[in-house]
Amino acid sequence: MASAISASGPLRLRQDQRLSERVTLSTFTLDGAQLSLDDFDAWLARRKAEHPYRVDLIPFAELRGWRTDPTTGNLVHETGRFFSVEGLNVQVHSEPRTAWQQPIIYQPEIGILGILVKEFGGVMHCLMQAKMEPGNPNLLQLAPTVQATKSNYTRVHRGASVNYLEYFERPQRDRVLADVLQSEHGAWFHRKHNRNMIVETDDDVPVREGFCWLTLGQLAELLKRDNLVNMDARTVLSCLPRPLHPETFRALHSDAGLRYWLTSERSRYDVHAERVPLAGIRDWERTETEIRHVDEHFFDVVAVSVEAASREVVSWTQPLFRPAGTGIAAFLLNRIDGVPHLLAHARVEGGLRDSVEIAPTVQRIPSNYTDVPAGERPPYLDLVLDADPSRVHYEAVHSEEGGRFLDAVSRYLIVETPPSMSLHDVPPGYFWVTPEQLFLLIEQGHCVNVQARTLVACLGAAEVENHA
Amino acid sequence: MASAISASGPLRLRQDQRLSERVTLSTFTLDGAQLSLDDFDAWLARRKAEHPYRVDLIPFAELRGWRTDPTTGNLVHETGRFFSVEGLNVQVHSEPRTAWQQPIIYQPEIGILGILVKEFGGVMHCLMQAKMEPGNPNLLQLAPTVQATKSNYTRVHRGASVNYLEYFERPQRDRVLADVLQSEHGAWFHRKHNRNMIVETDDDVPVREGFCWLTLGQLAELLKRDNLVNMDARTVLSCLPRPLHPETFRALHSDAGLRYWLTSERSRYDVHAERVPLAGIRDWERTETEIRHVDEHFFDVVAVSVEAASREVVSWTQPLFRPAGTGIAAFLLNRIDGVPHLLAHARVEGGLRDSVEIAPTVQRIPSNYTDVPAGERPPYLDLVLDADPSRVHYEAVHSEEGGRFLDAVSRYLIVETPPSMSLHDVPPGYFWVTPEQLFLLIEQGHCVNVQARTLVACLGAAEVENHA
Repeated sequence: MASAISASGPLRLRQDQRLSERVTLSTFTLDGAQLSLDDFDAWLARRKAEHPYRVDLIPFAELRGWRTDPTTGNLVHETGRFFSVEGLNVQVHSEPRTAWQQPIIYQPEIGILGILVKEFGGVMHCLMQAKMEPGNPNLLQLAPTVQATKSNYTRVHRGASVNYLEYFERPQRDRVLADVLQSEHGAWFHRKHNRNMIVETDDDVPVREGFCWLTLGQLAELLKRDNLVNMDARTVLSCLPRPLHPETFRALHSDAGLRYWLTSERSRYDVHAERVPLAGIRDWERTETEIRHVDEHFFDVVAVSVEAASREVVSWTQPLFRPAGTGIAAFLLNRIDGVPHLLAHARVEGGLRDSVEIAPTVQRIPSNYTDVPAGERPPYLDLVLDADPSRVHYEAVHSEEGGRFLDAVSRYLIVETPPSMSLHDVPPGYFWVTPEQLFLLIEQGHCVNVQARTLVACLGAAEVENHA
Repeated sequence: MASAISASGPLRLRQDQRLSERVTLSTFTLDGAQLSLDDFDAWLARRKAEHPYRVDLIPFAELRGWRTDPTTGNLVHETGRFFSVEGLNVQVHSEPRTAWQQPIIYQPEIGILGILVKEFGGVMHCLMQAKMEPGNPNLLQLAPTVQATKSNYTRVHRGASVNYLEYFERPQRDRVLADVLQSEHGAWFHRKHNRNMIVETDDDVPVREGFCWLTLGQLAELLKRDNLVNMDARTVLSCLPRPLHPETFRALHSDAGLRYWLTSERSRYDVHAERVPLAGIRDWERTETEIRHVDEHFFDVVAVSVEAASREVVSWTQPLFRPAGTGIAAFLLNRIDGVPHLLAHARVEGGLRDSVEIAPTVQRIPSNYTDVPAGERPPYLDLVLDADPSRVHYEAVHSEEGGRFLDAVSRYLIVETPPSMSLHDVPPGYFWVTPEQLFLLIEQGHCVNVQARTLVACLGAAEVENHA
């Protein structure tokens, strides 16, 4: 319909068909203007060799610049900035009622995660950066152009200025392809959100050391590898406007039906989460080196020292959250009448601003369930764990934000449902959506959690979308 | 584009063109299947005469079922339900930094505001109710089909069950036209939101006493009158899917540009709002009958007794917030290349979940500014107050939620800009948007404040939209 109208006067069309075409072209381009994928591998290996670093676990007492507040027991930075580790008291008023306490990361400032985009030879490229983060299993990963907390760019830690920040602080308004506040891990952060920005430019952008231009097709290839594209890059990529094909207008449920389902789920759970002092939270104990759950479930809080030459400051210490095991995050996929659909799960997380967001079908740490009898295991967990390889359309191990989490790795999967599975027989809290419907919710922010956004970013790599 | 594809198999088209046509038809229908507008007037007058009531200001000590917590000074209900009046400490970290304390209503449960829709003779009608609320200047107003807090429908106050609630608690999923969580007054409520629902049915719905069916055209006529359509009805009506015309695809700013602007505004203000004990908040004082600001600005908290036969219980007492004067809420209107645009204002309110939502161009209590010199007066306030009547496209006085606010009335206006005004010379925090772009944000929830939603609901009455 849009294409039948020609913009005149000062107005522009609200839907940008041309952008769709440009995204598609970049997605199909595997030869970058700057680097081939082989070149990229060599470039990354060189970065790694030239910038050695080490990360060691240390006792809390050896943290520098951090202190334990004597009254609350909270771990806080001496500047009052960065983040703090506090307690969270969560009560969920639903059937059945549940309540728990846990440590939580509190960081009440909005950071910028931004990817700068520019056309080379008519093909969109993304400016990506090789970035070391102490919690990543392999330390060096591919990050967005800018990944900056306010503490970063207001220079609290007296480090270097943030490269390319000016493109995101003062972009040309009509070159902003995406700008949306998205939640991060609701199980570990209290009400944290960051700006996810994609900004295009025609400037002659200097490529600084540690940065490179890659096409969307190259990024899709790299998303097939383990622990390479970092969480911040994945969440920003999930916000890229999706090409609209006629197929995208067909779905099992209408958009209004989807909104009704999500609002119902949000209203079903009355979640009350309030910060409390970390000292004395129920079921958690503190040693000289860890704050851990008495059953050793969930995660623990540890401290590390970092020595690196490539980071903004040469060495530092900080707390990190370390999950109790490797996670699994999987969407079930079903082609309904030829149109791909994913099985969304409305998941409560204590730290989310809106209590409930859409998560992958399965988002669990399987080792927590080894002793759980068959009838009580989480929906679809075994179906994903036992899936025949022919039904696995995508599989890679990715790590979560390495600046806050230590070895927080999950196996991300997209698994086609077995033919025997009924389309309509899904448990409460689950709902079939098209990738385009998920994007509709990503575009508005605070609806799709960070694990589900990672899987949306990987859809291109999974090749589940068979558009004509 | 959608219309070129025919849905086959189990799928449906995501965009419902037929719904657009049905909304348009109802908007142009002034003769309702049940009542003409004259009949409606007689019906409402009869309701008023048959159900007398009185509301009196009382000292706090005469509240029944409510008590002042001896430690915090908070006004709380003895059941712990309904709502409480507490203190709020607000700090806004932006330039310039500001901070204040104020009383706030805390009601951490999600209510349902719902309008039931049914076709009579092929025309959509809304089931509306004549409802008494103690804070309304004329007490009896036109409300949605259902207007229920959880306390209402879980029968905390041992009253009657809520009429028609079953249509909203268990609707047919594909008959839900809208279901979205929307904020209410961020200056008076802490993080309050309600479900705004519109549900259609083909059932043979019995019309209970105090209810009537009206077309969208009849409601538009009634929205031209003062203090008739209540706030809950107005906010639900603002969520009705809008007819999509080709014109709606043209706007001064792209949707991505609009999202960038709103995200920027949200990131510009770091708003920290936390509940604190009501006793001892700065600049507020408590007498036997009022909690008021020392300068008598903003609002005060009072208590009332209500005696009425038509409400769920026969008599009760409760606290109410009473604003310091009549408000003004106005959108500036500009037809850019023939397409109507409204001037949105990104407004910080301490009680909003996302700190900033889109407000009308002007949202003020003018009496607060009588002594303010010309150069320091709020943007556009005088332009609206002094507008030539020929430029006023819409004007009516509406009251806010009469169950929480006493005589909280505002003059709502839509005012066309003078020809001399430059389109591009707007101050920071203001942005031209089309009504359809506003609806895009209403549809996602928590983006457009309740005053702006009232004006969107009144756009039909204003006849500013000149679609071919």
